[in-house]
Amino acid sequence: MPNLNPVIKKRYVEIPEPSLSDTLGDWQRLLREFKNKLGYNGVSVNISLLGSLGRVLREGNWKVTGTFSETDGRIQLVNLEKGNTEARSYALACDIGTTTLVVNLVDVNSGKVIDSKTSYNPQRAHGEDVTSRMAHCDQEGGLSQLYQLVVDELNSMVDYLCTSQGIKQDEINGMVCAGNTIMIHILLGFDPRTIRKEPYVPLTTFYPVILASETGIKINPYGITKCLPGVSGYIGGDITAGVLSTGLNESNEIILFIDIGTNGETVLGSKDWIVACSGSAGSAFEGCGLEFGMSATSGAIEKITLRENGEINYKTLDNENPKGVCGSALIDLLAQLLESGIINRQGKINAEFKSSRIRRTVLGYEFVIAWGSETQINKDIVLAQTDIDNLIRDKAALYAGSTILLKSMQMEFSNVEKLLIAGNFGRHLDVEKAISIGLLPDIERSKIEFIGNSSIDGATRALLSIEDLEKAQQIATSITTFELTREPSYYDIYTSALFLPHTDMSLFPSVKTPK
Amino acid sequence: MPNLNPVIKKRYVEIPEPSLSDTLGDWQRLLREFKNKLGYNGVSVNISLLGSLGRVLREGNWKVTGTFSETDGRIQLVNLEKGNTEARSYALACDIGTTTLVVNLVDVNSGKVIDSKTSYNPQRAHGEDVTSRMAHCDQEGGLSQLYQLVVDELNSMVDYLCTSQGIKQDEINGMVCAGNTIMIHILLGFDPRTIRKEPYVPLTTFYPVILASETGIKINPYGITKCLPGVSGYIGGDITAGVLSTGLNESNEIILFIDIGTNGETVLGSKDWIVACSGSAGSAFEGCGLEFGMSATSGAIEKITLRENGEINYKTLDNENPKGVCGSALIDLLAQLLESGIINRQGKINAEFKSSRIRRTVLGYEFVIAWGSETQINKDIVLAQTDIDNLIRDKAALYAGSTILLKSMQMEFSNVEKLLIAGNFGRHLDVEKAISIGLLPDIERSKIEFIGNSSIDGATRALLSIEDLEKAQQIATSITTFELTREPSYYDIYTSALFLPHTDMSLFPSVKTPK
Repeated sequence: MPNLNPVIKKRYVEIPEPSLSDTLGDWQRLLREFKNKLGYNGVSVNISLLGSLGRVLREGNWKVTGTFSETDGRIQLVNLEKGNTEARSYALACDIGTTTLVVNLVDVNSGKVIDSKTSYNPQRAHGEDVTSRMAHCDQEGGLSQLYQLVVDELNSMVDYLCTSQGIKQDEINGMVCAGNTIMIHILLGFDPRTIRKEPYVPLTTFYPVILASETGIKINPYGITKCLPGVSGYIGGDITAGVLSTGLNESNEIILFIDIGTNGETVLGSKDWIVACSGSAGSAFEGCGLEFGMSATSGAIEKITLRENGEINYKTLDNENPKGVCGSALIDLLAQLLESGIINRQGKINAEFKSSRIRRTVLGYEFVIAWGSETQINKDIVLAQTDIDNLIRDKAALYAGSTILLKSMQMEFSNVEKLLIAGNFGRHLDVEKAISIGLLPDIERSKIEFIGNSSIDGATRALLSIEDLEKAQQIATSITTFELTREPSYYDIYTSALFLPHTDMSLFPSVKTPK
Repeated sequence: MPNLNPVIKKRYVEIPEPSLSDTLGDWQRLLREFKNKLGYNGVSVNISLLGSLGRVLREGNWKVTGTFSETDGRIQLVNLEKGNTEARSYALACDIGTTTLVVNLVDVNSGKVIDSKTSYNPQRAHGEDVTSRMAHCDQEGGLSQLYQLVVDELNSMVDYLCTSQGIKQDEINGMVCAGNTIMIHILLGFDPRTIRKEPYVPLTTFYPVILASETGIKINPYGITKCLPGVSGYIGGDITAGVLSTGLNESNEIILFIDIGTNGETVLGSKDWIVACSGSAGSAFEGCGLEFGMSATSGAIEKITLRENGEINYKTLDNENPKGVCGSALIDLLAQLLESGIINRQGKINAEFKSSRIRRTVLGYEFVIAWGSETQINKDIVLAQTDIDNLIRDKAALYAGSTILLKSMQMEFSNVEKLLIAGNFGRHLDVEKAISIGLLPDIERSKIEFIGNSSIDGATRALLSIEDLEKAQQIATSITTFELTREPSYYDIYTSALFLPHTDMSLFPSVKTPK
């Protein structure tokens, strides 16, 4: 790590003992040595932690290790331990997603992520997307219920990581969190509901550094919680983290960055300017809103091959029996169903097609991906007509978002020099298939890159580099957002994209017009 | 008040409502208006208070009153209320004395102290002086017991003031406290015991600004508590406040400032330099350590005239029947007992003197000041031989302290251009008598001034002027302290002063050598 300059640092210091000729108070004595030996000026401290310093100094015979956080230009003492504990210095980077929570346990000395844990956000029980989470806050106690769910889950993730790695929770001295504006509001106990209604204004997009004890996360209670700033109600700190992760803000090239997370945010820009918008739809391509959709975790079908006879081969993550389908396989399947004529360009299942996998239910037609006997869940895993409709709406929204951003800058897809796709798809994502259904624009394949979860990556970078944390703040202030529903041309552009790959095939010259 | 620039300020602001063309988050929107309309940059806010701002803004139709604190160069939002509440803006100045607590309720708009309450510090149940308070902390739970006692008493004082003045406790948005280092440590829950042993080092002499809720004082929980900084374990924020109150730090003249409080601190200096020391004795002249000693409150005998026949006339505060004796009367009495020969220059009661007021008890001789039938307490109010011994020891310690400070600067009492005496004596203090017993040095009478409680006055000034608060911080860093017990000549100087007025009568040329 060439730029390792973490937000959390430990420093061993030997403090001259007080004497009658040097009677400075304990705290002023520490401040003097922090300044003289470490170059730290104006260190602040919480009042309760301050109360314990005298005892630690004396028990440690004036040889102590201070843990410092450095954020927003301010240095805070977050711990003081007896003796030299510099070797054990840990912190967390967290992605607070609507669907998925990720916690990276980071050794701040080496800059290495030593372990990572992914869980579903248990708030999902109260709705899959941010809109339903906000609606849940209308209920008495709804906000604190959502708050408690996410904090409890994060605590059990931290507990798991600590136990696995033989680390005490008190040895973790801070956390940097990235998440969309609604998730971070809930994490901090803020009412997010103003974001739901025009003009979609959040309480705040910048978050003060607070104590871990104030968030309820069980690490060193005087450790810090820093949530990365966002831009607006629908462009949150996860996108700031993503931009940081991609380096878009420092790029000479024009980059189009699409986060196919639950909200489908799109960012366009370079070092000179950045514009962004958020799709109003959650992302079916991450499995949201589909009965058998799931994250790219154990048991997810991540690759599908449709044979000529209408039969199927699939591959699951960790080679377990399937539990559901993740994004890469959904793209595979949709592209092949289209190519084979099982669905038409509007995504409608062709009932005439002869296959035992096509069947009718009370809700309409569906396509069987795996038979119950093959699965972990003893149920047929299917892609229903409504699932296909969802997928098409989402890809249309993403396409329309990119188009609007480009238009706002008087550009076209051909001006994009790099297309970065973030999301939790599985390893086997097939670019050609993604383009053939119009999820991605038809641009030069070498320009396209899949970058995985850019939110957790950005949060980890910000944790490990004070400069990157400052960059995140600059990114958040420099992004101009577009409210898609206010763009007069949005609905036309969106509607035209409700075909596979698009109504206007001239936009997809490399794609053969499907049957 | 020409310099009225209080640490706590209310400001009414009308905030432009958000719209689709101005979608800034609530907090960023407030910050923008604070900057544009009030010139406040980088306002910080507690996370819980932040959580409530969206509701207040909307309920107030974006017309709100912010309450700000400005300390240590940082501006904090401590309250946001609907509508215009500028007219009602209150704060507290507190003197946390070892013996006495004083709370001033201040209208920060007018700069006026609108009410004031004085109480005994209930910690007195665990010892009269700071040494015994520290000793009490050796007991299990002793520190938190002392903490709770002072906080409960302060809360009942605040409650009394609020009820009297028709003010809600939530309308009080901050407090500035002055007190000696041990009292402030206990108030903040800090263990003061390191101050007791060589090298007498406190945990801290500068105190971070904290929330009122963190001290447990029941005012607006987001209001601030600012404790004035001290210099050392035995020169505390009460002395910093005193120096601020007297203007010693900006004076062209050499000022000797003696605080005859419980600890007897002495300060010498001018705008160019300041030195200080603390007497090791508590102040008998404030009634401490005397069975019938008391503060100058209702029922205290505050003036005594000894008639030629050995009989007594006295005057009490508020003309109530007497409960005890305060400082001014103790000085009166001691001087007249000496003059009349009832005590000799060593303070010993002359048993031969014919007066029904002199009597012998198992503990030695005593002098009856008021007969039980005249008092509120149905007990004879007396001055015992041990009381006289205490008074003499204390005046000797004060005299020795001043002498040491002067010697350290190669000065004598004749170099003192102003002598300021702070303390809670009662209105009728007689300078000639104070000099005749050697409590005050024999200097030109016009140079001597009694200034009352300079600690509460300094705290009130610091509350009402950000500049004065900053000066207090400068004063605390600029004072050089002397540890009297380390000065080789101290015990000689002290012992010589154990006579009335002094062993060396040439130091008291204007005083007639007593019989």
